[in-house]
Amino acid sequence: MVKKVLKFGGTSVGTAERIQHVANIIKKEHSAGNKVIAVVSAMAGKTNELIKLSKEISEDFDKRELDVLLSSGEQVTCALLAASLIKLKIKAKSLMNWQIPILTEGEHANARIINIHVEKIDKYLDENGVVIIPGFQGISKNGDTTTIGRGGSDATAVAVAKIFNAEKCEIYTDVDGVFSTDPNKIPVAKKIDKISYDEMLELSSLGAKVMQSSAVQTAMIYDIPLEVKSTFTERKGTKIFSQVNIDYSKSVTGVAYSKDDAKITIIGVQDKPGVAANIFEPLSKSQINVDMVIQNISSDQKTTDVTFTVKRDDIAKTKKILKSNSKIKYKEIIHKDKVAKISIVGAGMVSTPGVTYRMFRALSDEDINILAISTSEIKLSVIIEEEHVLKAIKKLHTIFDLD
Amino acid sequence: MVKKVLKFGGTSVGTAERIQHVANIIKKEHSAGNKVIAVVSAMAGKTNELIKLSKEISEDFDKRELDVLLSSGEQVTCALLAASLIKLKIKAKSLMNWQIPILTEGEHANARIINIHVEKIDKYLDENGVVIIPGFQGISKNGDTTTIGRGGSDATAVAVAKIFNAEKCEIYTDVDGVFSTDPNKIPVAKKIDKISYDEMLELSSLGAKVMQSSAVQTAMIYDIPLEVKSTFTERKGTKIFSQVNIDYSKSVTGVAYSKDDAKITIIGVQDKPGVAANIFEPLSKSQINVDMVIQNISSDQKTTDVTFTVKRDDIAKTKKILKSNSKIKYKEIIHKDKVAKISIVGAGMVSTPGVTYRMFRALSDEDINILAISTSEIKLSVIIEEEHVLKAIKKLHTIFDLD
Repeated sequence: MVKKVLKFGGTSVGTAERIQHVANIIKKEHSAGNKVIAVVSAMAGKTNELIKLSKEISEDFDKRELDVLLSSGEQVTCALLAASLIKLKIKAKSLMNWQIPILTEGEHANARIINIHVEKIDKYLDENGVVIIPGFQGISKNGDTTTIGRGGSDATAVAVAKIFNAEKCEIYTDVDGVFSTDPNKIPVAKKIDKISYDEMLELSSLGAKVMQSSAVQTAMIYDIPLEVKSTFTERKGTKIFSQVNIDYSKSVTGVAYSKDDAKITIIGVQDKPGVAANIFEPLSKSQINVDMVIQNISSDQKTTDVTFTVKRDDIAKTKKILKSNSKIKYKEIIHKDKVAKISIVGAGMVSTPGVTYRMFRALSDEDINILAISTSEIKLSVIIEEEHVLKAIKKLHTIFDLD
Repeated sequence: MVKKVLKFGGTSVGTAERIQHVANIIKKEHSAGNKVIAVVSAMAGKTNELIKLSKEISEDFDKRELDVLLSSGEQVTCALLAASLIKLKIKAKSLMNWQIPILTEGEHANARIINIHVEKIDKYLDENGVVIIPGFQGISKNGDTTTIGRGGSDATAVAVAKIFNAEKCEIYTDVDGVFSTDPNKIPVAKKIDKISYDEMLELSSLGAKVMQSSAVQTAMIYDIPLEVKSTFTERKGTKIFSQVNIDYSKSVTGVAYSKDDAKITIIGVQDKPGVAANIFEPLSKSQINVDMVIQNISSDQKTTDVTFTVKRDDIAKTKKILKSNSKIKYKEIIHKDKVAKISIVGAGMVSTPGVTYRMFRALSDEDINILAISTSEIKLSVIIEEEHVLKAIKKLHTIFDLD
């Protein structure tokens, strides 16, 4: 008897027909003798429809009531899926956030799951029943409905897997798994069979939006094996677990990229403690998401140049905030609007010499100029002109044997 | 400080715009110093949409899960209305079936409210807040979501009014109130200012579908004054209370009708105890709704003729059941397919001589043949050919001074 958590995203439960297909997947797992807890999202488009409705009332819709509104989406899916299973003669029932209950703390729209009561669900599993529960939501200690942020159904699935000591947590989605790069852009992109949590984190934060990052983080902390797989094919998915379980034959696991970036350099900033904080604090307070930050020593060695990237839409706002910032002194602000970030990710990079050099050489061979470089243990990112993105991904994908 | 229950039906909350209009109605009541509990239905069309979705899964959708599914409709309205009030700077919040809680007993899809906890709501009202609660639903003693049948939001409103000792219970809808007959058919139909519970019951069960009958019954039992009024006009509605509060200047309050009826007569049934039960028990078990029943003594005085009406769609099924019924003996079954029932209703009828005679004379003047007659204390119904319905209503409306 293996206890499994199966999570189905919005597109997987987007229509009555798809929900019945999901019921058949669950039936197969149940018939194989597994104890199944299914975590479901709202039907595709449903959450956006409710948000649209809320905006017709107010752009500043009350947060508590927004959670009441949005949580209705998963409730609908739960009921439809439970009834689909019952139609297939499988004992099943839905249990809502308040029935379980799923306890959260933190503010509305951005709560965190702190506990899930196991009694009711474990009892029902022991009676050979399948339990369907809503992702994305819980209740606060005051007994109000809360939600845990968009994509939060992944976080629910991982929390359930952890609290119920599940042997497996499978994330069903509309793609076959995690790919070595964007399969829509690079036809030779390959599905990755196994990947470590930290590689997955680097890849997902860089654009491979298969699974919510904070859910991967939680899985990493508690060492919960994940598998991302397609609802619509029978193919094997991508297994995500800790590095020690992976035999790295390749130094690079994937090539990620992010578009619509812009690069800003503040030239001649005074080089003294606190200057970086003075630069970035007001940006953060204005909700500007700063991505890569690089600090170079300037030629006169008394001042420094600080380069960072932001989303292209934020560039005007960013410049305005920098210019009105009386706490920093500098010579000049320059910026480049159409840049992109290309990253190679791989836990095997640490132990493989020459990866850095090979990346730079490959880009140089393609006449692509590198505007900035940033490295971490398992990732190497460069900023290049946006027009070269495709050429760069293709080249890197090939030279690191990912095709 | 008057405690008021305001109930808003599906068309009243059918769009974000209408919900904001409802918020303004509540704001006016709240600003006038009233304590307001609002009971809301699902947005118009929403419940049917969910039922359609359930039928895509199964025609025999699990009842427990259907209640989970359908109850999401009122949840959405509650959140939208509460946020609309907050936008108008009124302190407000939604409380769901499980938060209050609203306790029910009985089976899924057809539960009855047995208690509503008052603590949370009364506390919030005392803090000058407006509480928005979902109609139509509750929870069972097992903690499952239940629903109380379609139109059940009226029943919720009356139960809330009773349990909270509210001074008023106002049913907001898409018509101006209760009319002396169908205003869509008879332009001279007039809104009734005051009506007794039992007249309202006779009218509503006959087709004036302004308010759910069982809710009116509950209001009658506990003597809760109701007012049915329009969400979309400022006009006064129809007040519904006990007969003693009404000064009857007119003998007849309204003329109702029901269409799509068929009349069946079983001729020459043995006249002995138990025969009626033997006829109607199998029909009831097959979900056939028998309306008017009239039993005439037959000419030979040993047998009797039993006449009753059913919905036209049920006629084939009804005949089949009668013919296969071995417990009854009879000469012949005859039926007339296109008939209608016309009723005059009025608590003043009892004390006014000649109402019966005047009705029959009026129909005879129009050359309308009466096929069957049934009377009660405050109602007089006749079955006529369906083609004469309009002519009959017009005539009766005029002669009883309702125009």
